[in-house]
Amino acid sequence: MPTPDNLPRVVIVGAGFGGLACAQALGGKPVQVTLVDRRNYHLFVPLLYQVATAALSPADIARPIRRIVGRYKNIEVALGTVTSVDTAARRVRLSNGSELPYDKLVVATGSEYSYFGHPEWAEFAPGPRSLEDARRIRAQLLTSFERAEVSPDAARQDALMTTVIVGGGPTGVEMAGSVAELARHALARDFRNIDPRRAKIILIEAGPRILAGFPEPLSDYAKRALEKLGVTVITNEAVESIDAKGVVVAGRRIDAGTVIWGAGIKASPAAALLGATLDRAGRVPLNPDLSVKGVADVYALGDMASTPDEHGAPLPALAQVAAQQGAYLGRALAKSFADGKPLPPFKFHNRGNTAIVGRNAAVFDFGWMQLKGWFAWVMWALIHVYLLVGFDNRARVTLQWLWAYLTYQRGARLIMRDFDS
Amino acid sequence: MPTPDNLPRVVIVGAGFGGLACAQALGGKPVQVTLVDRRNYHLFVPLLYQVATAALSPADIARPIRRIVGRYKNIEVALGTVTSVDTAARRVRLSNGSELPYDKLVVATGSEYSYFGHPEWAEFAPGPRSLEDARRIRAQLLTSFERAEVSPDAARQDALMTTVIVGGGPTGVEMAGSVAELARHALARDFRNIDPRRAKIILIEAGPRILAGFPEPLSDYAKRALEKLGVTVITNEAVESIDAKGVVVAGRRIDAGTVIWGAGIKASPAAALLGATLDRAGRVPLNPDLSVKGVADVYALGDMASTPDEHGAPLPALAQVAAQQGAYLGRALAKSFADGKPLPPFKFHNRGNTAIVGRNAAVFDFGWMQLKGWFAWVMWALIHVYLLVGFDNRARVTLQWLWAYLTYQRGARLIMRDFDS
Repeated sequence: MPTPDNLPRVVIVGAGFGGLACAQALGGKPVQVTLVDRRNYHLFVPLLYQVATAALSPADIARPIRRIVGRYKNIEVALGTVTSVDTAARRVRLSNGSELPYDKLVVATGSEYSYFGHPEWAEFAPGPRSLEDARRIRAQLLTSFERAEVSPDAARQDALMTTVIVGGGPTGVEMAGSVAELARHALARDFRNIDPRRAKIILIEAGPRILAGFPEPLSDYAKRALEKLGVTVITNEAVESIDAKGVVVAGRRIDAGTVIWGAGIKASPAAALLGATLDRAGRVPLNPDLSVKGVADVYALGDMASTPDEHGAPLPALAQVAAQQGAYLGRALAKSFADGKPLPPFKFHNRGNTAIVGRNAAVFDFGWMQLKGWFAWVMWALIHVYLLVGFDNRARVTLQWLWAYLTYQRGARLIMRDFDS
Repeated sequence: MPTPDNLPRVVIVGAGFGGLACAQALGGKPVQVTLVDRRNYHLFVPLLYQVATAALSPADIARPIRRIVGRYKNIEVALGTVTSVDTAARRVRLSNGSELPYDKLVVATGSEYSYFGHPEWAEFAPGPRSLEDARRIRAQLLTSFERAEVSPDAARQDALMTTVIVGGGPTGVEMAGSVAELARHALARDFRNIDPRRAKIILIEAGPRILAGFPEPLSDYAKRALEKLGVTVITNEAVESIDAKGVVVAGRRIDAGTVIWGAGIKASPAAALLGATLDRAGRVPLNPDLSVKGVADVYALGDMASTPDEHGAPLPALAQVAAQQGAYLGRALAKSFADGKPLPPFKFHNRGNTAIVGRNAAVFDFGWMQLKGWFAWVMWALIHVYLLVGFDNRARVTLQWLWAYLTYQRGARLIMRDFDS
């Protein structure tokens, strides 16, 4: 029987959907795995918008990585950021100075928001990409209503009660719907000098329609559902600037208390550490077995990589793509270590693409079938609860959602700092 | 019928147990109430130690003030800190510059930790007094275990896995028990290079026994219960210094990854704004009707005030004291506005004093009866869930506790920052 020291070594960087699935597929196999992340928790990013709008708590959608993989004795967890990769010597260096040798390296560090060449906008328009971002958005939203309540100036009140969401993809649509419900229901009766139901929520999309990745009937449905919630949907107009006071769109200034970004993503900066030639979005180009083109023994997956589908177009940046790639890669690597054969090509199976507009309103696209409305919304909720890692999270989130559904209330309306201005 | 403008005006500063109870007692009465707090939430401070040890999430023990008092149309909520009180002109000035006129002022701003003339210790030894503190302690505890896991030095590993808790009152005892359970159970199997069950937890009390406010048999029981959990209880020894590396106690250095403060409290600085002569702990001296001695139309209550009991000793700094005082004052003020008579004296009714050591182990002192062990623990849990404001919080906390009881797991093991060292 092989000792741990002569087992093949796999280092996985990133414990998102892809990295975690890869580690789990290697769990219990004759392989020494080290899973590296800069956080101690795996984050269920698709529900971050609910933390940003006070519907869920951070711990509801985060779970300690050690807890998830703790039962696999062959998986070690290392916390830290990767500062360099020596692909010749096959070593990864971490921020704490330690070095991890590998036989195979899997990089799955995901993506971050891209501000289209305007990094200065990030300060004024956070996007729901990390728990810190989500908490920042939550504080900004709630603080704006508090400021409006004490403002003696009607125009200033209107501005503070205006939320602009940039980008009409799933994130933007979900944020817009959720902010509208927060203002129209959860906050509705809690103020004396303002009426939160008069809050303006404006969704701005530069392209001709929102949810451009979905079939047109679903985009139309989402637009109508948002408008029913009181959201103003603007299409074909691009945001030209963002500052502390609001945005300028198509030459027009919109004053806003809160601006939220959901417009574009780019690959995580770790992609640049691998020595491969990146595409325009900063993504790593892959071979069909997810190995990085031109770099030996290094694999990449998820949002940071560009995997062509059967027609040659890159697969979308979705949790299900990363999770399928991770699970495939873990299984394929374990098999290849055992039989010495090369990895088979990865194949993506579309499990359906979904976005939620609000209570009783969601869209689902399975390619061969489309769903919308109440039934899609129930399916969305069931699937998202099912996908949450850990029974305790599932039970908590189910309880939160049931409570919110029955009462229109939100449990996490916390501004985490002293209110001094 | 009186218009809102000629109703008597009551300003309440602080939405803790006392201020909130006072506001609720005035809810719906012919009085204009403004409730001022620097946070937008009421915090259930007695359970903060559970947030600090990853058992509960911040939102589980916090509830928006607006939500709690939202149904009373005569209560307005103002967020901000009080910067000055003009007792002659009867006006309170807030940090945002606004001024609130009052007919009666109720100050209930509570207490904060006192480091016995060593404010520099606060940096190294936070105490569970705010959500920020609790999150800081949680991050420090979890980060220390992560650092120990990657440390090559056995002595350093031992130091990182040592937690020192200063102060053997209820807070110190509860923290010590909860840290011990975190290490012995929740973290037990999640590391590869360290065994968290070997973690040292040291509780240091300067006096002759822990839980000095309880009868001696309960102190003895708590000490034995803590020792059973693996906590080292040191009495009759005072902490002489605290720094980033640990503490010095009775000339002996103890290296520690985490130091937690629970030793002493002092009145909130707002007490000094009232112009009254404060006692040695900075507390406001009160008349039997809770009016501040020597200051007209100003009342104080809770931890920041000194109320003599029937034997002349000050009432302890407990949530139940503040809550009873607040409810009494709200009712008495409403009655006094109506009939013009002076307020009757406040009478405290002891509902029982309690502290929890850990699973199945708590103490209860009702004066005429003492309880300890499993039954006291069940009562503690039932009463704390009952006292949580809001049905949703109750349901969530019950679920969390049931889950933790069955699995020994903790749901909120989040380190809220990048792990870089």
